[in-house]
Amino acid sequence: MSPIAAVVLTGGEVDQIAGLLTLRERGPFGLYGTEGTLSTLTANSIFSVLGADVVPRRAIQPGAAFALPGGIEAELFRVPGKAPLYLEGDNPDLEAETDANVGIELRAHGARLVFIPGAAKLTPAIASRLAEADVVLFDGTLFSDDEMIAARAGAKTGRRMGHMPVGGPDGTLAALAGLARRRILIHINNTNPILIEGSPQRRAVEAAGFEVAEDGMRIEL
Amino acid sequence: MSPIAAVVLTGGEVDQIAGLLTLRERGPFGLYGTEGTLSTLTANSIFSVLGADVVPRRAIQPGAAFALPGGIEAELFRVPGKAPLYLEGDNPDLEAETDANVGIELRAHGARLVFIPGAAKLTPAIASRLAEADVVLFDGTLFSDDEMIAARAGAKTGRRMGHMPVGGPDGTLAALAGLARRRILIHINNTNPILIEGSPQRRAVEAAGFEVAEDGMRIEL
Repeated sequence: MSPIAAVVLTGGEVDQIAGLLTLRERGPFGLYGTEGTLSTLTANSIFSVLGADVVPRRAIQPGAAFALPGGIEAELFRVPGKAPLYLEGDNPDLEAETDANVGIELRAHGARLVFIPGAAKLTPAIASRLAEADVVLFDGTLFSDDEMIAARAGAKTGRRMGHMPVGGPDGTLAALAGLARRRILIHINNTNPILIEGSPQRRAVEAAGFEVAEDGMRIEL
Repeated sequence: MSPIAAVVLTGGEVDQIAGLLTLRERGPFGLYGTEGTLSTLTANSIFSVLGADVVPRRAIQPGAAFALPGGIEAELFRVPGKAPLYLEGDNPDLEAETDANVGIELRAHGARLVFIPGAAKLTPAIASRLAEADVVLFDGTLFSDDEMIAARAGAKTGRRMGHMPVGGPDGTLAALAGLARRRILIHINNTNPILIEGSPQRRAVEAAGFEVAEDGMRIEL
């Protein structure tokens, strides 16, 4: 049994949904996601180990507020990105704004937190949302677009995977400058040098007023 | 990248296949299983993150020897059991001998190891196979058939889950007595008292000449 009361999915990528399989001990919780993401679970029968009688699924329309346990108000919103790798097909749209890739805003007691684990670019609408936030947790996958290729860790650029880079003129540090009271980078790939304390890239992140997330991090609003 | 050169599936239960999702870093290895088990992977698109160009799948016929990397000869064989939980339907056959649940025998340099993580009962054919083995790793899910119900950890008996108990007149200790040079219990549920050193059930296991597997265990043949 786990103390988890609710799971909200922001997409159907493996790292977003595989953890559900370790929550299959018939402990009750609510499972929320867009209709697109929930249909991916339905199409993969392995997820039916989460019995509908103990883990009810609720389809959430982006843009419409909904209630989570504990008095939290939540809202999903579309973020430019792509379909999950195993569904993307031959020529995926890398900056589509669909139900397949969303962020979530959480509101309680007047505080606002925004969580965006994957973003291909920052739209004006999302920038406005971040401007109002107390904390934003944002896609920090790669520092440089060609980082995995340079490290011989893969053949893909960050943009090909649907992620804007952290550094550079079009990167996250520039795009999010001045937005939100507190900015934390998440979803960081193991090739990303911001994971190394004291590296030039880590210092650039800190100088720009961003934090690097770590395991067990606790955020108080 | 992982040093794993081959993965052989003995069934399509979540604990047998979910680990594949953490091997999706485009490192090459061979994936072996019965046609029934591989078709379960095909039916769940999430497993296509293991690209066919780096992780070729090979359907194996039970009873036919096949070669694994490192000079190991292997053979799958049917074991009484049931279909994976998420595929079982309303009235599953709990002791079916189908391609959905198999054991594996590994042979190299004259040594034999048999691995059976789930067995509803021991057939004469499997007993003969174990008699010839140097080491057998065998289903030790529950000590008593009603153990999960007694511990209020679940509503199912072991037999309903397709597992024979370790103890009792029809249990594994009795059924495997005298078979194989070395007998090791695996796939042990967290309600099973054999995990507690010094418990009466653990002492019964040890007195019967069985070992209890542990993380990081290394077996030399």
